[in-house]
Amino acid sequence: MSFEFELTATEGAARAGVLSTPHGQVKTPTFMPVGTQGSVKCLSPGQVRRSGAGIVLANAYHLMIRPGAEVVAGCGGIQDWCGWRGPMLTDSGGYQLFSLAELARVSDEGVEFRSHIDGAPIFMSPEDAIGVQKLIGADIIMPLDDCVGFPIERRRAEKSVARTLLWARRSKAAHAGGSQALFAIVQGGTYHDLRRESAEGLVELDLAGYAVGGVSVGEGTSLIREIVEATVPYLPPQRPRYLMGVGPPEDLLFAVAAGIDMFDCVMPTRNGRNGWAFTADGIVKVKNSLHARECVPLEEGCDCYTCVNFTRSYLRHLFNAGEMLGMTLVSLHNLRFFARLMEGARDAITRGAFGAYSRAALGRLGRLTD
Amino acid sequence: MSFEFELTATEGAARAGVLSTPHGQVKTPTFMPVGTQGSVKCLSPGQVRRSGAGIVLANAYHLMIRPGAEVVAGCGGIQDWCGWRGPMLTDSGGYQLFSLAELARVSDEGVEFRSHIDGAPIFMSPEDAIGVQKLIGADIIMPLDDCVGFPIERRRAEKSVARTLLWARRSKAAHAGGSQALFAIVQGGTYHDLRRESAEGLVELDLAGYAVGGVSVGEGTSLIREIVEATVPYLPPQRPRYLMGVGPPEDLLFAVAAGIDMFDCVMPTRNGRNGWAFTADGIVKVKNSLHARECVPLEEGCDCYTCVNFTRSYLRHLFNAGEMLGMTLVSLHNLRFFARLMEGARDAITRGAFGAYSRAALGRLGRLTD
Repeated sequence: MSFEFELTATEGAARAGVLSTPHGQVKTPTFMPVGTQGSVKCLSPGQVRRSGAGIVLANAYHLMIRPGAEVVAGCGGIQDWCGWRGPMLTDSGGYQLFSLAELARVSDEGVEFRSHIDGAPIFMSPEDAIGVQKLIGADIIMPLDDCVGFPIERRRAEKSVARTLLWARRSKAAHAGGSQALFAIVQGGTYHDLRRESAEGLVELDLAGYAVGGVSVGEGTSLIREIVEATVPYLPPQRPRYLMGVGPPEDLLFAVAAGIDMFDCVMPTRNGRNGWAFTADGIVKVKNSLHARECVPLEEGCDCYTCVNFTRSYLRHLFNAGEMLGMTLVSLHNLRFFARLMEGARDAITRGAFGAYSRAALGRLGRLTD
Repeated sequence: MSFEFELTATEGAARAGVLSTPHGQVKTPTFMPVGTQGSVKCLSPGQVRRSGAGIVLANAYHLMIRPGAEVVAGCGGIQDWCGWRGPMLTDSGGYQLFSLAELARVSDEGVEFRSHIDGAPIFMSPEDAIGVQKLIGADIIMPLDDCVGFPIERRRAEKSVARTLLWARRSKAAHAGGSQALFAIVQGGTYHDLRRESAEGLVELDLAGYAVGGVSVGEGTSLIREIVEATVPYLPPQRPRYLMGVGPPEDLLFAVAAGIDMFDCVMPTRNGRNGWAFTADGIVKVKNSLHARECVPLEEGCDCYTCVNFTRSYLRHLFNAGEMLGMTLVSLHNLRFFARLMEGARDAITRGAFGAYSRAALGRLGRLTD
């Protein structure tokens, strides 16, 4: 099966759809767990699958550096190699190069940087990023983009938009109709007109999907929302839309309402490893001594392996005793929470009840967070 | 169902049997994964179960210190609390008190020691050890014993035998016919006559099972084997026999041949976390760069989740990249290896072919170990 995206229902700007890839279908809106180095941290692919995740993200930059894209290719590509027999997406590494900025020098030719492992100098062009991702073999691949921070001067944001478009063109040429789905990444900082300009330029390239990039770089929730609203109207409705690196449940609900279909974020797994559990009522801090004798699940009514089998008392003990299983179990619950949030959104959109679903969810979410 | 042990086949001194407990049956010989703090490190109870393990060990000393036995009792006992819905055994902590010896002072009354967590002074009598284990609620419990090291003077070994018998009597009185199965622990160091004396004294108490203790304290494989041979003949054939803290596959095969039914050891999980995998041909050191491009499982033909789904290339990458999943997957394989070794031994005993099974296994095992 090749790459396809079909809308099955809409409610206002919110959409429910089905993404078809060579490794299977994914119902949207969908949250993609992050497996930066080819592993969703602390979880087996079976555990990730049972959390309800349909598609997993890996990072081409990290895999290129270690173990090397040709190692992954030599074992049959990323799905066979990391044991996730389902749809996958690789990010190119533009964001990583941005976040390792002091080690990187960006020009129109590409990015010159030093390996974060051994300091070795590496040059990556947009063509290189496509070549690496062809070797890795995910279903969806992302072009190299010129990701900028926040706050950012307008002049630099303009340059980022122009360069990202230039690189997207070169990426498309390097991709040359390959079997992987190549997305584009919209830049433009917090400048609404630049976001529109970036989107319109990229849409002309007619790529398989459109990502809103350059977010989650320190601009905060309200600006992320502004950026989404300034960008989505200029994206083609028949293509999937991916908001990169976002985010907390509240932001996911907002972005679904605005017409986003795909998300990724380290939040459920990173917070899980720190003992912060997402629940419908907000955050449960597992390490807190008030849970020491609580013989109840993390979240009443949750159907995840963690909530079905373990109490807060036991989970708190695992963190307290330094047992890694604690990180695994809370990460697992958090992924299930994010998957359930998206499943609920999808069902609601299909029933034309997303507005009510979102209001009810948002009304509860803040209750425990401090 | 109460506690029962039934022999189903013998071959020479080797035995196949079935252990029945309130939480289910276990086929013997059996290897018990170690969940010291109520968690088999890096693995979920579901993963432990699917490795083929039938019974899991936890440590009463550790759980008493953290989170406290009454916390475990308050959540319904160890099985409910840690999510292992099957037979469990708790060790009393005699070995731990021995291994933390500089913090402990032993008298006939019991052990005075300082918590390894916060240094708080604690006194534990044999009656306390039973009381703690009643609260924790495992199916099989162990009395406090006076575990000594190696080498050990004969006079101290004699004292250990006498005190361990005294404590076993007091433990039996404290147990008072409770529903848990109380075992005894044979001591006597490397002195054959003391091992016999210890065994005979304890057998008079008619306890539910007999453990060979005070081994794996630095005496080495050949002395462990001597101790087993000097002890087993004096244990009642109708009771299960448990060799504590042993050990490498070769020693398990030897001990099964000598008539041991139960084992526990941290070796499969500890080595798994260090990237050492047990295979029929010996140890595979996963981190070794020679595995970087090996697109084959850890062990050809192994039916574990790790070997069915992942290559050495990927596992090596996980360790190299510091991904915890590597520790989980190799631990899982190692537990499956130990379970298969015991399953194979049991089948062979049932067919009267254990001698050949053991010789064939031992002939291969050394090949990769350095």
